[in-house]
Amino acid sequence: MTNVIDELLVERDIMRLNQTHGGLIDDDRLEEWPDLFTDDGKYIIQTRENLDAGLNGGYWMYHTSKQMIRDRVISLLHVNHYNKHYYRHFISNQRIVETSNDVYSVRSNFLVVQTDFEGKTESISAGEYKDKILLHNGEFKFVEKFVIADTFHLPTMVIMPL
Amino acid sequence: MTNVIDELLVERDIMRLNQTHGGLIDDDRLEEWPDLFTDDGKYIIQTRENLDAGLNGGYWMYHTSKQMIRDRVISLLHVNHYNKHYYRHFISNQRIVETSNDVYSVRSNFLVVQTDFEGKTESISAGEYKDKILLHNGEFKFVEKFVIADTFHLPTMVIMPL
Amino acid sequence: MTNVIDELLVERDIMRLNQTHGGLIDDDRLEEWPDLFTDDGKYIIQTRENLDAGLNGGYWMYHTSKQMIRDRVISLLHVNHYNKHYYRHFISNQRIVETSNDVYSVRSNFLVVQTDFEGKTESISAGEYKDKILLHNGEFKFVEKFVIADTFHLPTMVIMPL
Repeated sequence: MTNVIDELLVERDIMRLNQTHGGLIDDDRLEEWPDLFTDDGKYIIQTRENLDAGLNGGYWMYHTSKQMIRDRVISLLHVNHYNKHYYRHFISNQRIVETSNDVYSVRSNFLVVQTDFEGKTESISAGEYKDKILLHNGEFKFVEKFVIADTFHLPTMVIMPL
Repeated sequence: MTNVIDELLVERDIMRLNQTHGGLIDDDRLEEWPDLFTDDGKYIIQTRENLDAGLNGGYWMYHTSKQMIRDRVISLLHVNHYNKHYYRHFISNQRIVETSNDVYSVRSNFLVVQTDFEGKTESISAGEYKDKILLHNGEFKFVEKFVIADTFHLPTMVIMPL
Repeated sequence: MTNVIDELLVERDIMRLNQTHGGLIDDDRLEEWPDLFTDDGKYIIQTRENLDAGLNGGYWMYHTSKQMIRDRVISLLHVNHYNKHYYRHFISNQRIVETSNDVYSVRSNFLVVQTDFEGKTESISAGEYKDKILLHNGEFKFVEKFVIADTFHLPTMVIMPL
Protein backbone atom coordinates (compact mmCIF):
# COMPACT_ATOMS: atom_id res chain seq x y z
CA MET A 1 0.00 0.00 0.00
CA THR A 2 2.88 2.35 0.78
CA ASN A 3 4.19 1.98 -2.76
CA VAL A 4 0.91 3.07 -4.21
CA ILE A 5 0.70 6.12 -1.98
CA ASP A 6 4.25 7.05 -2.87
CA GLU A 7 3.26 6.81 -6.52
CA LEU A 8 0.31 9.16 -6.05
CA LEU A 9 2.50 11.60 -4.15
CA VAL A 10 5.20 11.59 -6.80
CA GLU A 11 2.62 12.31 -9.49
CA ARG A 12 1.20 15.12 -7.41
CA ASP A 13 4.62 16.63 -6.71
CA ILE A 14 5.69 16.44 -10.33
CA MET A 15 2.43 18.10 -11.33
CA ARG A 16 3.25 20.82 -8.79
CA LEU A 17 6.65 21.38 -10.38
CA ASN A 18 4.98 21.85 -13.76
CA GLN A 19 2.39 24.14 -12.22
CA THR A 20 5.09 26.20 -10.56
CA HIS A 21 6.84 26.40 -13.94
CA GLY A 22 3.69 27.74 -15.57
CA GLY A 23 2.79 29.92 -12.60
CA LEU A 24 6.12 31.73 -12.42
CA ILE A 25 5.94 32.59 -16.12
CA ASP A 26 2.29 33.65 -15.90
CA ASP A 27 2.95 35.73 -12.78
CA ASP A 28 5.89 37.41 -14.47
CA ARG A 29 8.26 36.13 -11.78
CA LEU A 30 10.77 34.88 -14.30
CA GLU A 31 13.74 35.53 -12.03
CA GLU A 32 12.67 32.58 -9.85
CA TRP A 33 12.15 30.24 -12.78
CA PRO A 34 15.76 29.03 -13.31
CA ASP A 35 15.75 27.52 -9.81
CA LEU A 36 13.36 24.86 -11.01
CA PHE A 37 16.30 23.37 -12.92
CA THR A 38 19.34 21.39 -11.78
CA ASP A 39 22.72 23.06 -12.35
CA ASP A 40 23.18 21.19 -15.60
CA GLY A 41 19.48 21.39 -16.44
CA LYS A 42 18.48 21.84 -20.06
CA TYR A 43 15.63 23.90 -21.46
CA ILE A 44 14.89 23.20 -25.09
CA ILE A 45 12.11 24.25 -27.42
CA GLN A 46 11.72 22.30 -30.61
CA THR A 47 8.81 22.16 -33.02
CA ARG A 48 6.80 19.09 -33.76
CA GLU A 49 7.20 19.75 -37.47
CA ASN A 50 10.97 19.47 -37.21
CA LEU A 51 10.81 16.46 -34.93
CA ASP A 52 8.41 14.64 -37.23
CA ALA A 53 10.61 15.49 -40.19
CA GLY A 54 13.52 13.93 -38.34
CA LEU A 55 15.40 17.20 -38.26
CA ASN A 56 18.05 17.43 -35.61
CA GLY A 57 18.66 21.02 -34.73
CA GLY A 58 16.61 24.00 -35.76
CA TYR A 59 15.87 24.54 -32.11
CA TRP A 60 13.91 27.55 -31.10
CA MET A 61 15.63 27.79 -27.74
CA TYR A 62 18.47 25.60 -26.59
CA HIS A 63 19.88 26.18 -23.15
CA THR A 64 22.09 23.52 -21.62
CA SER A 65 22.72 24.78 -18.11
CA LYS A 66 21.00 26.70 -15.38
CA GLN A 67 23.46 29.55 -16.01
CA MET A 68 22.38 29.84 -19.66
CA ILE A 69 18.77 29.78 -18.57
CA ARG A 70 19.49 32.52 -16.06
CA ASP A 71 21.21 34.66 -18.69
CA ARG A 72 18.19 34.33 -20.91
CA VAL A 73 15.90 35.37 -18.11
CA ILE A 74 17.96 38.46 -17.30
CA SER A 75 17.74 39.64 -20.89
CA LEU A 76 13.99 39.00 -20.85
CA LEU A 77 13.53 41.02 -17.68
CA HIS A 78 14.64 44.09 -19.58
CA VAL A 79 12.45 43.50 -22.60
CA ASN A 80 9.63 42.57 -20.36
CA HIS A 81 9.39 46.05 -18.96
CA TYR A 82 7.15 47.00 -21.85
CA ASN A 83 5.12 43.85 -21.66
CA LYS A 84 1.65 44.42 -23.04
CA HIS A 85 -0.07 41.12 -22.46
CA TYR A 86 -0.60 38.33 -20.01
CA TYR A 87 0.17 34.65 -20.40
CA ARG A 88 -1.70 31.78 -18.83
CA HIS A 89 -0.59 28.15 -18.86
CA PHE A 90 -2.93 25.18 -18.89
CA ILE A 91 -1.09 21.96 -18.20
CA SER A 92 -2.93 18.66 -18.28
CA ASN A 93 -2.77 15.01 -19.37
CA GLN A 94 0.37 14.44 -17.30
CA ARG A 95 1.69 10.88 -17.21
CA ILE A 96 4.93 9.38 -15.99
CA VAL A 97 6.17 7.19 -18.83
CA GLU A 98 9.39 5.89 -17.31
CA THR A 99 11.26 5.86 -14.04
CA SER A 100 14.94 5.16 -13.78
CA ASN A 101 16.73 5.65 -10.46
CA ASP A 102 15.47 9.00 -9.34
CA VAL A 103 14.78 10.39 -12.79
CA TYR A 104 11.20 10.46 -14.01
CA SER A 105 10.33 10.82 -17.68
CA VAL A 106 7.08 12.72 -17.81
CA ARG A 107 4.84 13.84 -20.64
CA SER A 108 2.12 16.44 -20.40
CA ASN A 109 0.17 18.74 -22.68
CA PHE A 110 0.34 22.50 -22.47
CA LEU A 111 -1.77 25.30 -23.84
CA VAL A 112 -0.57 28.87 -23.49
CA VAL A 113 -3.24 31.50 -23.79
CA GLN A 114 -2.40 35.17 -24.22
CA THR A 115 -4.62 38.05 -23.30
CA ASP A 116 -3.75 41.46 -24.67
CA PHE A 117 -4.84 44.81 -23.33
CA GLU A 118 -7.53 45.16 -25.94
CA GLY A 119 -9.15 42.11 -24.46
CA LYS A 120 -8.44 39.49 -27.06
CA THR A 121 -7.78 36.06 -25.55
CA GLU A 122 -6.06 33.71 -27.95
CA SER A 123 -4.20 30.43 -27.88
CA ILE A 124 -0.65 31.21 -28.84
CA SER A 125 0.92 27.81 -28.41
CA ALA A 126 -0.18 24.24 -27.83
CA GLY A 127 2.17 21.35 -27.49
CA GLU A 128 3.78 18.83 -25.26
CA TYR A 129 6.33 18.78 -22.47
CA LYS A 130 8.66 15.80 -22.48
CA ASP A 131 10.50 16.31 -19.23
CA LYS A 132 13.16 14.53 -17.27
CA ILE A 133 12.69 15.30 -13.62
CA LEU A 134 15.08 14.47 -10.81
CA LEU A 135 14.17 13.82 -7.22
CA HIS A 136 17.08 15.04 -5.12
CA ASN A 137 16.94 15.61 -1.37
CA GLY A 138 13.19 15.45 -1.44
CA GLU A 139 12.90 18.10 -4.13
CA PHE A 140 11.91 17.72 -7.76
CA LYS A 141 13.86 19.66 -10.39
CA PHE A 142 14.03 19.66 -14.16
CA VAL A 143 17.07 17.87 -15.54
CA GLU A 144 15.59 18.57 -18.92
CA LYS A 145 12.49 20.40 -19.99
CA PHE A 146 11.90 19.57 -23.62
CA VAL A 147 9.12 21.67 -25.08
CA ILE A 148 7.58 20.45 -28.31
CA ALA A 149 5.51 23.25 -29.77
CA ASP A 150 2.95 22.16 -32.32
CA THR A 151 4.05 24.99 -34.52
CA PHE A 152 6.83 27.46 -35.04
CA HIS A 153 4.67 30.16 -36.51
CA LEU A 154 3.00 32.13 -33.79
CA PRO A 155 0.43 34.89 -34.14
CA THR A 156 2.64 37.19 -32.09
CA MET A 157 6.31 37.29 -31.29
CA VAL A 158 6.87 35.09 -28.29
CA ILE A 159 10.06 35.59 -26.40
CA MET A 160 8.96 34.10 -23.12
CA PRO A 161 9.57 30.49 -22.20
CA LEU A 162 6.63 28.22 -22.88
CA MET B 1 1.23 8.20 6.25
CA THR B 2 -2.30 9.18 7.25
CA ASN B 3 -1.36 12.84 6.96
CA VAL B 4 -0.21 12.41 3.43
CA ILE B 5 -3.39 10.61 2.40
CA ASP B 6 -5.49 13.30 4.05
CA GLU B 7 -3.55 15.85 2.03
CA LEU B 8 -4.26 14.05 -1.24
CA LEU B 9 -7.93 13.75 -0.35
CA VAL B 10 -8.24 17.42 0.54
CA GLU B 11 -6.69 18.38 -2.78
CA ARG B 12 -9.05 16.06 -4.59
CA ASP B 13 -12.10 17.36 -2.75
CA ILE B 14 -11.17 20.98 -3.32
CA MET B 15 -10.66 20.21 -7.00
CA ARG B 16 -14.14 18.68 -6.98
CA LEU B 17 -15.62 21.86 -5.51
CA ASN B 18 -14.05 23.85 -8.32
CA GLN B 19 -15.25 21.34 -10.89
CA THR B 20 -18.75 21.50 -9.48
CA HIS B 21 -18.55 25.29 -9.70
CA GLY B 22 -17.61 25.11 -13.36
CA GLY B 23 -19.99 22.25 -14.08
CA LEU B 24 -23.07 23.98 -12.68
CA ILE B 25 -22.40 27.07 -14.78
CA ASP B 26 -21.65 25.03 -17.91
CA ASP B 27 -24.74 22.88 -17.40
CA ASP B 28 -26.89 25.96 -16.93
CA ARG B 29 -27.88 24.84 -13.44
CA LEU B 30 -27.15 28.22 -11.93
CA GLU B 31 -29.84 27.92 -9.27
CA GLU B 32 -27.71 25.32 -7.46
CA TRP B 33 -24.53 27.36 -7.66
CA PRO B 34 -25.02 29.63 -4.60
CA ASP B 35 -25.01 26.57 -2.33
CA LEU B 36 -21.32 26.16 -2.98
CA PHE B 37 -20.80 29.22 -0.77
CA THR B 38 -20.99 29.71 2.98
CA ASP B 39 -23.71 32.09 4.18
CA ASP B 40 -21.25 34.97 4.32
CA GLY B 41 -19.44 33.72 1.22
CA LYS B 42 -18.06 36.30 -1.21
CA TYR B 43 -17.94 36.12 -4.98
CA ILE B 44 -15.75 38.75 -6.54
CA ILE B 45 -14.50 39.34 -10.07
CA GLN B 46 -11.61 41.71 -10.48
CA THR B 47 -9.32 42.21 -13.44
CA ARG B 48 -5.64 41.57 -13.41
CA GLU B 49 -5.05 44.96 -15.01
CA ASN B 50 -6.66 46.71 -12.05
CA LEU B 51 -4.94 44.51 -9.50
CA ASP B 52 -1.54 45.08 -11.10
CA ALA B 53 -2.22 48.81 -11.20
CA GLY B 54 -2.92 48.67 -7.46
CA LEU B 55 -6.49 49.79 -7.97
CA ASN B 56 -8.83 48.96 -5.17
CA GLY B 57 -12.33 48.77 -6.47
CA GLY B 58 -13.46 48.75 -10.05
CA TYR B 59 -14.81 45.31 -9.43
CA TRP B 60 -16.73 43.61 -12.15
CA MET B 61 -18.89 41.70 -9.72
CA TYR B 62 -18.82 42.08 -5.97
CA HIS B 63 -21.16 39.94 -3.93
CA THR B 64 -20.55 39.64 -0.22
CA SER B 65 -23.09 37.08 0.90
CA LYS B 66 -24.82 34.00 -0.34
CA GLN B 67 -28.04 36.02 -0.47
CA MET B 68 -26.50 38.56 -2.86
CA ILE B 69 -25.17 35.70 -4.97
CA ARG B 70 -28.61 34.15 -5.03
CA ASP B 71 -30.23 37.44 -6.09
CA ARG B 72 -27.79 37.69 -8.94
CA VAL B 73 -28.56 34.19 -10.06
CA ILE B 74 -32.30 34.80 -10.04
CA SER B 75 -31.89 37.80 -12.30
CA LEU B 76 -29.67 35.73 -14.60
CA LEU B 77 -32.20 32.94 -14.83
CA HIS B 78 -34.55 35.35 -16.57
CA VAL B 79 -31.99 36.72 -18.99
CA ASN B 80 -30.73 33.25 -19.61
CA HIS B 81 -33.94 32.21 -21.21
CA TYR B 82 -32.69 33.56 -24.50
CA ASN B 83 -29.24 32.13 -24.04
CA LYS B 84 -27.62 31.48 -27.40
CA HIS B 85 -24.35 29.84 -26.51
CA TYR B 86 -22.67 27.29 -24.29
CA TYR B 87 -19.90 27.79 -21.78
CA ARG B 88 -17.25 25.27 -20.85
CA HIS B 89 -14.80 25.66 -17.96
CA PHE B 90 -11.29 24.25 -17.93
CA ILE B 91 -9.75 24.42 -14.48
CA SER B 92 -6.20 23.31 -13.91
CA ASN B 93 -2.94 24.08 -12.13
CA GLN B 94 -4.64 23.95 -8.74
CA ARG B 95 -2.39 24.32 -5.72
CA ILE B 96 -3.08 24.91 -2.04
CA VAL B 97 -0.88 27.81 -1.02
CA GLU B 98 -1.85 28.16 2.62
CA THR B 99 -3.83 26.36 5.28
CA SER B 100 -5.05 28.02 8.40
CA ASN B 101 -7.43 26.19 10.71
CA ASP B 102 -9.99 24.79 8.33
CA VAL B 103 -9.58 27.45 5.66
CA TYR B 104 -7.56 26.61 2.59
CA SER B 105 -6.15 29.28 0.30
CA VAL B 106 -6.16 27.81 -3.16
CA ARG B 107 -5.04 29.09 -6.53
CA SER B 108 -6.00 27.62 -9.88
CA ASN B 109 -6.16 28.68 -13.52
CA PHE B 110 -9.38 28.84 -15.48
CA LEU B 111 -10.20 29.07 -19.13
CA VAL B 112 -13.78 29.64 -20.21
CA VAL B 113 -14.57 28.66 -23.75
CA GLN B 114 -17.79 29.71 -25.44
CA THR B 115 -19.43 27.93 -28.33
CA ASP B 116 -22.14 29.78 -30.21
CA PHE B 117 -24.82 28.25 -32.39
CA GLU B 118 -22.96 29.09 -35.56
CA GLY B 119 -20.25 26.77 -34.35
CA LYS B 120 -17.53 29.19 -33.37
CA THR B 121 -15.56 28.04 -30.32
CA GLU B 122 -13.61 30.82 -28.70
CA SER B 123 -11.81 31.53 -25.45
CA ILE B 124 -13.76 34.27 -23.75
CA SER B 125 -11.88 34.52 -20.49
CA ALA B 126 -8.66 33.22 -19.00
CA GLY B 127 -7.53 33.98 -15.51
CA GLU B 128 -6.99 32.78 -12.02
CA TYR B 129 -9.11 31.75 -9.07
CA LYS B 130 -7.76 32.78 -5.68
CA ASP B 131 -10.16 31.03 -3.37
CA LYS B 132 -10.63 30.66 0.34
CA ILE B 133 -12.32 27.37 1.01
CA LEU B 134 -13.74 26.19 4.33
CA LEU B 135 -14.04 22.63 5.49
CA HIS B 136 -17.12 22.46 7.68
CA ASN B 137 -18.83 19.24 8.75
CA GLY B 138 -16.94 17.31 6.13
CA GLU B 139 -18.01 19.63 3.33
CA PHE B 140 -15.99 22.16 1.41
CA LYS B 141 -17.54 25.54 0.61
CA PHE B 142 -16.29 28.82 -0.77
CA VAL B 143 -15.76 31.47 1.89
CA GLU B 144 -14.46 33.60 -0.93
CA LYS B 145 -14.14 32.99 -4.62
CA PHE B 146 -11.91 35.70 -6.00
CA VAL B 147 -11.83 35.61 -9.79
CA ILE B 148 -9.00 37.45 -11.47
CA ALA B 149 -9.82 37.77 -15.14
CA ASP B 150 -6.85 38.53 -17.35
CA THR B 151 -8.89 41.16 -19.06
CA PHE B 152 -12.01 43.21 -18.72
CA HIS B 153 -12.68 43.51 -22.40
CA LEU B 154 -14.46 40.45 -23.65
CA PRO B 155 -15.38 39.58 -27.21
CA THR B 156 -19.01 39.15 -26.15
CA MET B 157 -21.07 40.41 -23.28
CA VAL B 158 -20.58 38.04 -20.40
CA ILE B 159 -23.12 38.14 -17.67
CA MET B 160 -22.57 34.70 -16.27
CA PRO B 161 -20.24 34.01 -13.39
CA LEU B 162 -16.78 32.88 -14.44
CA MET C 1 -8.16 4.05 4.85
CA THR C 2 -7.71 1.39 2.18
CA ASN C 3 -11.02 2.37 0.62
CA VAL C 4 -9.97 5.93 0.28
CA ILE C 5 -6.68 5.03 -1.36
CA ASP C 6 -8.48 2.71 -3.76
CA GLU C 7 -10.73 5.60 -4.65
CA LEU C 8 -7.80 7.88 -5.41
CA LEU C 9 -6.17 5.17 -7.51
CA VAL C 10 -9.32 4.50 -9.49
CA GLU C 11 -9.65 8.21 -10.26
CA ARG C 12 -6.04 8.35 -11.33
CA ASP C 13 -6.33 5.26 -13.53
CA ILE C 14 -9.52 6.47 -15.17
CA MET C 15 -7.83 9.79 -15.84
CA ARG C 16 -4.98 7.85 -17.42
CA LEU C 17 -7.39 6.03 -19.72
CA ASN C 18 -8.76 9.37 -20.88
CA GLN C 19 -5.26 10.74 -21.30
CA THR C 20 -4.27 7.71 -23.33
CA HIS C 21 -7.36 8.26 -25.47
CA GLY C 22 -6.36 11.84 -26.15
CA GLY C 23 -2.69 11.00 -26.48
CA LEU C 24 -3.15 8.30 -29.12
CA ILE C 25 -5.23 10.64 -31.27
CA ASP C 26 -2.83 13.55 -30.80
CA ASP C 27 0.18 11.35 -31.55
CA ASP C 28 -1.51 10.01 -34.68
CA ARG C 29 -1.35 6.46 -33.34
CA LEU C 30 -4.97 5.78 -34.17
CA GLU C 31 -4.40 2.09 -34.85
CA GLU C 32 -3.90 1.53 -31.10
CA TRP C 33 -6.97 3.50 -30.10
CA PRO C 34 -9.68 0.78 -30.54
CA ASP C 35 -7.96 -1.32 -27.88
CA LEU C 36 -9.12 1.15 -25.26
CA PHE C 37 -12.63 -0.24 -25.78
CA THR C 38 -14.25 -3.49 -24.71
CA ASP C 39 -15.34 -5.80 -27.54
CA ASP C 40 -18.87 -4.43 -27.40
CA GLY C 41 -17.64 -0.93 -26.63
CA LYS C 42 -19.52 2.01 -28.09
CA TYR C 43 -18.10 5.27 -29.40
CA ILE C 44 -20.71 7.92 -30.00
CA ILE C 45 -20.53 11.59 -30.84
CA GLN C 46 -23.65 13.62 -30.33
CA THR C 47 -24.08 17.37 -30.16
CA ARG C 48 -25.29 19.26 -27.15
CA GLU C 49 -27.78 21.13 -29.33
CA ASN C 50 -29.47 17.89 -30.32
CA LEU C 51 -29.38 16.50 -26.79
CA ASP C 52 -30.85 19.70 -25.35
CA ALA C 53 -33.52 19.67 -28.03
CA GLY C 54 -34.40 16.12 -26.97
CA LEU C 55 -33.48 14.75 -30.38
CA ASN C 56 -32.70 11.09 -30.41
CA GLY C 57 -30.47 10.30 -33.31
CA GLY C 58 -28.68 12.75 -35.55
CA TYR C 59 -25.45 11.27 -34.28
CA TRP C 60 -22.24 12.47 -35.73
CA MET C 61 -20.52 9.13 -35.21
CA TYR C 62 -22.18 6.03 -33.89
CA HIS C 63 -20.07 2.92 -33.50
CA THR C 64 -21.41 0.08 -31.41
CA SER C 65 -18.54 -2.38 -31.31
CA LYS C 66 -14.79 -2.44 -31.24
CA GLN C 67 -14.89 -3.89 -34.75
CA MET C 68 -16.83 -0.89 -36.08
CA ILE C 69 -14.40 1.42 -34.31
CA ARG C 70 -11.52 -0.45 -35.89
CA ASP C 71 -13.05 -0.20 -39.37
CA ARG C 72 -13.41 3.51 -38.92
CA VAL C 73 -9.80 3.84 -37.88
CA ILE C 74 -8.56 1.88 -40.89
CA SER C 75 -10.39 4.22 -43.25
CA LEU C 76 -8.95 7.19 -41.38
CA LEU C 77 -5.42 5.87 -41.67
CA HIS C 78 -5.70 6.26 -45.44
CA VAL C 79 -7.16 9.75 -45.36
CA ASN C 80 -4.70 10.71 -42.73
CA HIS C 81 -1.80 10.35 -45.09
CA TYR C 82 -2.39 13.90 -46.24
CA ASN C 83 -2.96 15.23 -42.76
CA LYS C 84 -1.99 18.88 -42.57
CA HIS C 85 -2.48 19.73 -38.94
CA TYR C 86 -1.95 18.58 -35.39
CA TYR C 87 -4.53 17.93 -32.71
CA ARG C 88 -4.04 18.38 -28.98
CA HIS C 89 -6.50 17.25 -26.32
CA PHE C 90 -6.98 18.98 -22.98
CA ILE C 91 -9.04 16.88 -20.61
CA SER C 92 -9.99 18.21 -17.21
CA ASN C 93 -12.75 18.48 -14.62
CA GLN C 94 -13.04 14.69 -14.39
CA ARG C 95 -15.47 13.33 -11.81
CA ILE C 96 -16.91 9.91 -11.16
CA VAL C 97 -20.65 10.39 -10.87
CA GLU C 98 -21.76 6.82 -10.31
CA THR C 99 -20.31 3.41 -9.63
CA SER C 100 -22.20 0.22 -10.23
CA ASN C 101 -20.41 -3.11 -9.93
CA ASP C 102 -17.25 -2.53 -11.87
CA VAL C 103 -18.66 0.10 -14.20
CA TYR C 104 -17.84 3.73 -13.50
CA SER C 105 -19.86 6.58 -14.96
CA VAL C 106 -17.44 9.42 -15.49
CA ARG C 107 -17.82 12.95 -16.79
CA SER C 108 -15.00 15.19 -17.94
CA ASN C 109 -14.52 18.24 -20.12
CA PHE C 110 -12.47 18.21 -23.29
CA LEU C 111 -11.00 20.89 -25.47
CA VAL C 112 -9.42 19.95 -28.77
CA VAL C 113 -7.02 22.47 -30.20
CA GLN C 114 -5.79 22.28 -33.77
CA THR C 115 -2.58 23.73 -35.08
CA ASP C 116 -2.17 24.02 -38.82
CA PHE C 117 1.09 24.35 -40.71
CA GLU C 118 0.66 28.07 -41.13
CA GLY C 119 0.85 28.34 -37.37
CA LYS C 120 -2.71 29.09 -36.45
CA THR C 121 -3.76 27.48 -33.17
CA GLU C 122 -7.50 27.30 -32.72
CA SER C 123 -10.04 25.54 -30.56
CA ILE C 124 -11.96 23.25 -32.85
CA SER C 125 -14.17 21.51 -30.36
CA ALA C 126 -15.12 21.85 -26.71
CA GLY C 127 -17.50 19.54 -24.94
CA GLU C 128 -17.98 16.81 -22.47
CA TYR C 129 -17.20 13.11 -22.22
CA LYS C 130 -19.85 11.02 -20.51
CA ASP C 131 -18.14 7.68 -20.29
CA LYS C 132 -18.92 4.25 -18.93
CA ILE C 133 -15.70 2.60 -17.97
CA LEU C 134 -15.25 -1.02 -16.97
CA LEU C 135 -12.61 -2.40 -14.66
CA HIS C 136 -11.81 -5.90 -15.89
CA ASN C 137 -8.76 -7.92 -14.82
CA GLY C 138 -7.16 -4.82 -13.39
CA GLU C 139 -7.55 -2.86 -16.61
CA PHE C 140 -9.89 0.00 -17.40
CA LYS C 141 -11.64 0.05 -20.77
CA PHE C 142 -14.40 2.10 -22.34
CA VAL C 143 -17.73 0.29 -22.43
CA GLU C 144 -19.09 3.51 -23.85
CA LYS C 145 -17.46 6.76 -24.75
CA PHE C 146 -20.21 9.28 -25.30
CA VAL C 147 -18.84 12.52 -26.68
CA ILE C 148 -21.07 15.56 -26.39
CA ALA C 149 -19.67 18.26 -28.63
CA ASP C 150 -20.87 21.76 -27.81
CA THR C 151 -21.46 22.31 -31.49
CA PHE C 152 -21.82 20.49 -34.75
CA HIS C 153 -20.46 23.28 -36.87
CA LEU C 154 -16.71 23.20 -36.88
CA PRO C 155 -14.31 25.67 -38.47
CA THR C 156 -12.68 22.83 -40.37
CA MET C 157 -13.74 19.38 -41.43
CA VAL C 158 -13.03 17.06 -38.55
CA ILE C 159 -12.89 13.40 -39.35
CA MET C 160 -10.83 12.30 -36.39
CA PRO C 161 -12.37 11.05 -33.18
CA LEU C 162 -12.68 13.69 -30.49
